[in-house]
Amino acid sequence: MKTLFIGGVKSGKSRLAEDYVLQRCGNEKPYYLATTEFFDDEMKARVAVHQQRRQDSFITIEEPVKLLATLQDLDRPVLVECVSMWLNNALYHQIPESDILQELDAVLQLPVELILIHNEVGLGVIPDNRLARQFIDLSGKAAQLMGRHCDRVFFCSAGLKLQMK
Amino acid sequence: MKTLFIGGVKSGKSRLAEDYVLQRCGNEKPYYLATTEFFDDEMKARVAVHQQRRQDSFITIEEPVKLLATLQDLDRPVLVECVSMWLNNALYHQIPESDILQELDAVLQLPVELILIHNEVGLGVIPDNRLARQFIDLSGKAAQLMGRHCDRVFFCSAGLKLQMK
Amino acid sequence: MKTLFIGGVKSGKSRLAEDYVLQRCGNEKPYYLATTEFFDDEMKARVAVHQQRRQDSFITIEEPVKLLATLQDLDRPVLVECVSMWLNNALYHQIPESDILQELDAVLQLPVELILIHNEVGLGVIPDNRLARQFIDLSGKAAQLMGRHCDRVFFCSAGLKLQMK
Repeated sequence: MKTLFIGGVKSGKSRLAEDYVLQRCGNEKPYYLATTEFFDDEMKARVAVHQQRRQDSFITIEEPVKLLATLQDLDRPVLVECVSMWLNNALYHQIPESDILQELDAVLQLPVELILIHNEVGLGVIPDNRLARQFIDLSGKAAQLMGRHCDRVFFCSAGLKLQMK
Repeated sequence: MKTLFIGGVKSGKSRLAEDYVLQRCGNEKPYYLATTEFFDDEMKARVAVHQQRRQDSFITIEEPVKLLATLQDLDRPVLVECVSMWLNNALYHQIPESDILQELDAVLQLPVELILIHNEVGLGVIPDNRLARQFIDLSGKAAQLMGRHCDRVFFCSAGLKLQMK
Repeated sequence: MKTLFIGGVKSGKSRLAEDYVLQRCGNEKPYYLATTEFFDDEMKARVAVHQQRRQDSFITIEEPVKLLATLQDLDRPVLVECVSMWLNNALYHQIPESDILQELDAVLQLPVELILIHNEVGLGVIPDNRLARQFIDLSGKAAQLMGRHCDRVFFCSAGLKLQMK
């Protein structure tokens, strides 16, 4: 079973996904795969809020880049927070786009239950910045791949979710 | 009863919200709370289009900042156009984020029927500009607060609405 | 019959619209109206991917500006890829906004079956750039016009569609 929560910045997708995975797991403690590398203070503050909310409900793993290697050993539901940050890190480490998408495809074939969080970034005006455009493209390709393989997809806005699949 | 219309720029959310409130009110004339401060000619032109459409269907009140104080004295449905502009004005007047969200929370507890219009701004690529990021964050937090308290939430695009709640 | 597919960059709207039109046409070969002018290599590469996918399923017509004149002679379903690019081209050729919207309105009254693809660009933060704001406005007005006249409207994200109408 694979589930995708896609939405904008501060759309409430993280909280919706956390509630969803905790409800599905019952007494079993799910994994929380944090993909954030701590680049700056603003990012740190943002992550701290998420951590506080998770408290003791999850077993946290931090891995910014090696998504497939990390996930293939896990045997309980994993909340991946978030795919966008992993894409960002992979680009930063100059991994070619085709390799990134191939790894994501392999991740989506794993038997482990995955709950994936992803930023929708393609609904604004196309930016001048070429790197930003490259990221939007990769992000959208990744979203389509997840949309195809996931059993359920929720679009999030205003802390609410609309089921697309 | 509280209702939220959330959508992008020129998504038709204002017209959809106006039609909705007029339909709900029947013969009773609803209030129209305009939160815009007239910063420049472009903004003035945009507001003029809205005003022309409202004609004599609403009792218009203009208040860019004091949302709670203005709304607590009203006893008929109020269309708030729009929450995003009020957030923008509050930031401009250097009201701290926590105070802004607390005031919005209090507004959402008022007994008066509210129809709230809000811009979704978090679905584009994250901007370089720190102030823009701060606004996106505040806007999203406000949207989540409204999403939680509102009885009905509509996501708008292409002049159409999708009910999220 | 008129159908609109609206969504972000790389939302999968093109593929969804292509599948939709091919399914509706059965053995009849539909038209594919490509509105792109080949401005740069990045755009060329993007278009090449679309062309490869279309293969022999469509009769391709290339017309960046004269939408009404091109469409009024066609008697089989036409996939218009995409309205956003046509708006962009029309602005580039300094056609006034009111003329552009009037032409689109006339297009939407034609008897021919149309499947229209359009970018939603209004869900990000409002850009500093005045031209970008002008484009967002025009794009939203065009989307509302299409939303009003189309029989079916689909909002696309992650390669999936949500029916709005």
